[in-house]
Amino acid sequence: MLHPDRFFDPDPQIREVARDLYAMVRDLPLICPHGHVDPAILAENRPFPDPAELIIIPDHYVFRMLYSQGIPLERLGIPRGDGRPVETDHRAIWQLFAENFHLFRGTPSRCWLEHELVEVFGIEEPLCAATGQAIYDDISEKLRSEEFLPRSLFEKFRIEVLCTTDSASDRLEHHRAIRDSGWKGVVRPTFRPDAAVDIAGTGWREEIERLEQVTGKEIASYRDFVAALESRRESFRSMGATATDHGVASPRTLQLSRWEVEGIFLRALRGDASEADGELFTAHMLMESARMSVDDGLVMQLHPGCFRNHNPLIFEAFGRDKGADIPLATEYTRNLQPLLAAYGNHANLTLVVFTLDESTLSRELAPLAGHYPAMRLGPAWWFHDSREGMTRYRRRVTETAGIYNTAGFNDDTRAFPSIPARHDLCRRVDANFLAGLVAEHVIDRRDAEEMIVDLSYGLAKKTYRL
Amino acid sequence: MLHPDRFFDPDPQIREVARDLYAMVRDLPLICPHGHVDPAILAENRPFPDPAELIIIPDHYVFRMLYSQGIPLERLGIPRGDGRPVETDHRAIWQLFAENFHLFRGTPSRCWLEHELVEVFGIEEPLCAATGQAIYDDISEKLRSEEFLPRSLFEKFRIEVLCTTDSASDRLEHHRAIRDSGWKGVVRPTFRPDAAVDIAGTGWREEIERLEQVTGKEIASYRDFVAALESRRESFRSMGATATDHGVASPRTLQLSRWEVEGIFLRALRGDASEADGELFTAHMLMESARMSVDDGLVMQLHPGCFRNHNPLIFEAFGRDKGADIPLATEYTRNLQPLLAAYGNHANLTLVVFTLDESTLSRELAPLAGHYPAMRLGPAWWFHDSREGMTRYRRRVTETAGIYNTAGFNDDTRAFPSIPARHDLCRRVDANFLAGLVAEHVIDRRDAEEMIVDLSYGLAKKTYRL
Amino acid sequence: MLHPDRFFDPDPQIREVARDLYAMVRDLPLICPHGHVDPAILAENRPFPDPAELIIIPDHYVFRMLYSQGIPLERLGIPRGDGRPVETDHRAIWQLFAENFHLFRGTPSRCWLEHELVEVFGIEEPLCAATGQAIYDDISEKLRSEEFLPRSLFEKFRIEVLCTTDSASDRLEHHRAIRDSGWKGVVRPTFRPDAAVDIAGTGWREEIERLEQVTGKEIASYRDFVAALESRRESFRSMGATATDHGVASPRTLQLSRWEVEGIFLRALRGDASEADGELFTAHMLMESARMSVDDGLVMQLHPGCFRNHNPLIFEAFGRDKGADIPLATEYTRNLQPLLAAYGNHANLTLVVFTLDESTLSRELAPLAGHYPAMRLGPAWWFHDSREGMTRYRRRVTETAGIYNTAGFNDDTRAFPSIPARHDLCRRVDANFLAGLVAEHVIDRRDAEEMIVDLSYGLAKKTYRL
Repeated sequence: MLHPDRFFDPDPQIREVARDLYAMVRDLPLICPHGHVDPAILAENRPFPDPAELIIIPDHYVFRMLYSQGIPLERLGIPRGDGRPVETDHRAIWQLFAENFHLFRGTPSRCWLEHELVEVFGIEEPLCAATGQAIYDDISEKLRSEEFLPRSLFEKFRIEVLCTTDSASDRLEHHRAIRDSGWKGVVRPTFRPDAAVDIAGTGWREEIERLEQVTGKEIASYRDFVAALESRRESFRSMGATATDHGVASPRTLQLSRWEVEGIFLRALRGDASEADGELFTAHMLMESARMSVDDGLVMQLHPGCFRNHNPLIFEAFGRDKGADIPLATEYTRNLQPLLAAYGNHANLTLVVFTLDESTLSRELAPLAGHYPAMRLGPAWWFHDSREGMTRYRRRVTETAGIYNTAGFNDDTRAFPSIPARHDLCRRVDANFLAGLVAEHVIDRRDAEEMIVDLSYGLAKKTYRL
Repeated sequence: MLHPDRFFDPDPQIREVARDLYAMVRDLPLICPHGHVDPAILAENRPFPDPAELIIIPDHYVFRMLYSQGIPLERLGIPRGDGRPVETDHRAIWQLFAENFHLFRGTPSRCWLEHELVEVFGIEEPLCAATGQAIYDDISEKLRSEEFLPRSLFEKFRIEVLCTTDSASDRLEHHRAIRDSGWKGVVRPTFRPDAAVDIAGTGWREEIERLEQVTGKEIASYRDFVAALESRRESFRSMGATATDHGVASPRTLQLSRWEVEGIFLRALRGDASEADGELFTAHMLMESARMSVDDGLVMQLHPGCFRNHNPLIFEAFGRDKGADIPLATEYTRNLQPLLAAYGNHANLTLVVFTLDESTLSRELAPLAGHYPAMRLGPAWWFHDSREGMTRYRRRVTETAGIYNTAGFNDDTRAFPSIPARHDLCRRVDANFLAGLVAEHVIDRRDAEEMIVDLSYGLAKKTYRL
Repeated sequence: MLHPDRFFDPDPQIREVARDLYAMVRDLPLICPHGHVDPAILAENRPFPDPAELIIIPDHYVFRMLYSQGIPLERLGIPRGDGRPVETDHRAIWQLFAENFHLFRGTPSRCWLEHELVEVFGIEEPLCAATGQAIYDDISEKLRSEEFLPRSLFEKFRIEVLCTTDSASDRLEHHRAIRDSGWKGVVRPTFRPDAAVDIAGTGWREEIERLEQVTGKEIASYRDFVAALESRRESFRSMGATATDHGVASPRTLQLSRWEVEGIFLRALRGDASEADGELFTAHMLMESARMSVDDGLVMQLHPGCFRNHNPLIFEAFGRDKGADIPLATEYTRNLQPLLAAYGNHANLTLVVFTLDESTLSRELAPLAGHYPAMRLGPAWWFHDSREGMTRYRRRVTETAGIYNTAGFNDDTRAFPSIPARHDLCRRVDANFLAGLVAEHVIDRRDAEEMIVDLSYGLAKKTYRL
């Protein structure tokens, strides 16, 4: 049912090389340096509940498309914050999805879902209204078997390392439980201090209190705050973390004076910080995080350029991460200059920069990554983690930055069973891209063979110091 | 003379599928939900005058290219506002065009013109200096025949519905004449209130006066103004309109308080409105238009991002729409947020958004259309209504928004006899795009067959409620 | 070793046409209307020193990539401003380059270098760690022979005309020496007044003093300054110049009043000019330069949109042009409007506009060039002077502006022996682009044959009035 040549150019001179390159990396272990899988899944190793709970309800890629065509989120079982009723018949939710599967034609969600159905669950018929219930039964039965427990899938997927994303105050109990269980799967935390840094965010005070509890020290000043972050970074490192992650609206960076930053922090503690204070503090903390990375060697990841919770009706009823985060035009050349000027030449810093604004790839990011030793370009991200998106990324980046200033692939997913589908898509697209270069005699076959292994495996491992 | 495989990828695996898909839709009726054909042409049904008057003089795509290479507009017969003489020998104008036809190599104008010459007028020789006069004679003779009258062409073109664009104060007399004539062609007006909304525009007072005359009510306040617009929308609907259209420099949207907007409107009536007042009023009126669409069901079209009349020398001598309107970088994520937050989840609103800034397609517009139920993406517009432009559009939009959040094709033309050429180009490009997806095994053949019919016919009809 | 079909699409229908089109222009003379070759090289005609001095040390495309991967510039022999030691063993530098040649896979630098090694120096083995020293010896020996003297290479390369770039105060002694030597090679200066216009730049006073010396007149006012520039333009024209060049951060244009501009200039002479003064003065001087071009017929080139010396550590240690110039998002529609409104309809002005922001190509620059008679689009520039970059350029520009509003190719290089490689790459990419249009039946074969000659030779010659 899945065509062996899928995502390859039909031209025989390209396709044959693409096939060979892909065959070299198809079965390589998966390096997953950035993602959002809940570590509890692997700590507890309980069966996944049912197909709707596994594939539809947690995946905003899936339900936002259905919502955009007029299907209420309640009918898809997305829980409301106010506890008002939503559909609880997961068979009915699955059927609604099956009936509308045509909406995903041409999207990466469809490619991933088809891969998951066929390769993970061994489904042999295409999903549609007529087959929906039989497929629901089939998957449900499999989910109850030993073979489909999270750790079994982890091993079947050949995951060499899986990094999760964890807030600064997280006690990493699930990571500890995994380690203590004796299971040999490698799961590492990633230090994401956004909630602690966002002094304008609604939950900031609570996060500071959690930080106080987990560190056992009062945070009464900016100096205390920095000490708490440094202490948590050390704890994360002791649990295997090799990276931090920073999601911000703007990639602005700025070094405030000690006096200014203490003033802002005290205003924030008093609940008096302005919006401008919040923006300055975020810009300052990016500088400070780079400084800490130079000190402790954690790879720094920067994900800017998103207007979160664009649809207030959805946010109020359903909360965050419901498919209503919309990208913004983003400026890197001026915004990153203070950080790169201060730390961009330093051998101990690796700064991985992502973008949702593709116009910056050839204009700003490839020239920056093609100059600064500390900088690497994150893979095609989010809306661009797709066949066309990854191809545009390589076409726009490679000529200026080469491949060796890029960070390899991230699956960036919370949908655990979709992980192999995502790596497979990327390996195919990269093989096809390189095959095109071979067919146009830009690189030779031997170059391509080294490059595909680097793109599929080596670069992610090296960039993230794994 | 026109190659049957034109605009198809030469790869045989793509080309053969493209041929088959195109064959499915080649002869489907034309849905024309957005355009600028003068309804008088069809109301009066008089013969078109001559080739230069038909093809060159009204088409700024054509004469701006000749002007850019140093040919004065006067030599092309473009009428001056001050009545100073311009070329009146239409044979000479046509000959100048024929001699410079090489300038259009690789442009959509050339593709459309060749289609029009061959398919509409049955010309068998390529246009050039040597053939110019014979072709002029041939077209002229045909234009005098019954078969080339506007209504005959309308039927020959298989136009199922043609929507025109009409100002808010238009009495729709030509539409009424068409309806009263008993002719069965379907021609619908579109409500475009730009002149009434643009309080900073030179002709605003005159448009308000025309609105007063046509509604028979004084407009002495913002409240009166809204009532006049609502009354006109009702009249347009009674004459068959299903949509409104809004051309603005910026897509900024903003709800002013009743008090603020009345103040601005009164300043405008007194001639005291500032530039900032004009911008606020436009932003407010977009909100208000969405509110009215929720009430009356007219589909709302938004065309932002153009610096009109960039060349003052041309504007002063020749007026508007002379090829000197230049696109601007445009921001949608922040600008549309107030409107979408207020009305974007509403089942009764369809908001069709266009762009001249292709960088917004994958960054902003596809994510917005892939989330909000009310939003649809207009087709590749104006400079991008072309083989490359439409291909880039599909490649940048489909993965995030699918095809079902796009609005199908608009020809957007005032050049009546070019309508079939424009639809044919789009049908070929869409068939080729889908054939590429089939050849790369992203979609299967059966999917593609449904999708090409939707792209060529179904989506436009459904989006515009026709 | 270089594949004869390199950079051509593998599809046989495209490749065969591309081969034929390329064969028509492969051996045409080279028109080099914009570049940075030091005229002293051709005036003195001394042997080039050694491979590292020729290929690595002066080429920031090459050493920035090595630097981005952690190789210190000192180890590459890049001279420090403070005279501290750097590597002087050029064999060792070359070897380090050879060992890291894989970093350039997929980049235009690699394509150019391979062409240069094979076609200019007759090297038969691929460069790598193992072959580095033998290739060093081979090139070194050749450089000592008569056949590899600069003027011999100039003739071997079939350069019809080479334009250099020279500051306003340059006495053009090397150009005079070339002319007086009786050698028949055509080398022309280009007037680049940036240092004289940049009142905020560190070397501005010195440049004004040099201008006073070379003109023999005091510059005590803006009026004097304009007279000095006009006098220098006249000298440049007498030495064969046909063009000026203007590198600015922003393409803003603005006509200041006589009173305002004199005030700014006097503040600058007193050392009191603000940053805002500098920006206004630059914007004004672009207008003034256009005015002068209307008067004297020098073609005006505009290169905006770069953040120069982004990395202060590199700038302080090594100075300018060390690979740390990073592009900026650039706005043309509003910024160029004052200049184009004033001079854009004038037959005596040719304004060639370049961009580092590809998103402006289809959005702003093609529409502007497709309207204003004075405007031409410069070729894909700097980071975009590459296979993908040039292809995107043609795809984004041709449909709106045609090819006849583009300026042909510039090699824009200071690396003299790379000139044929750069023209060859462009001729191949243009042939491939046109072959694609032929294979898709957008243009016919005869059109393509005329177009490839225009793109490879005719347009550059005509645009630059050579």
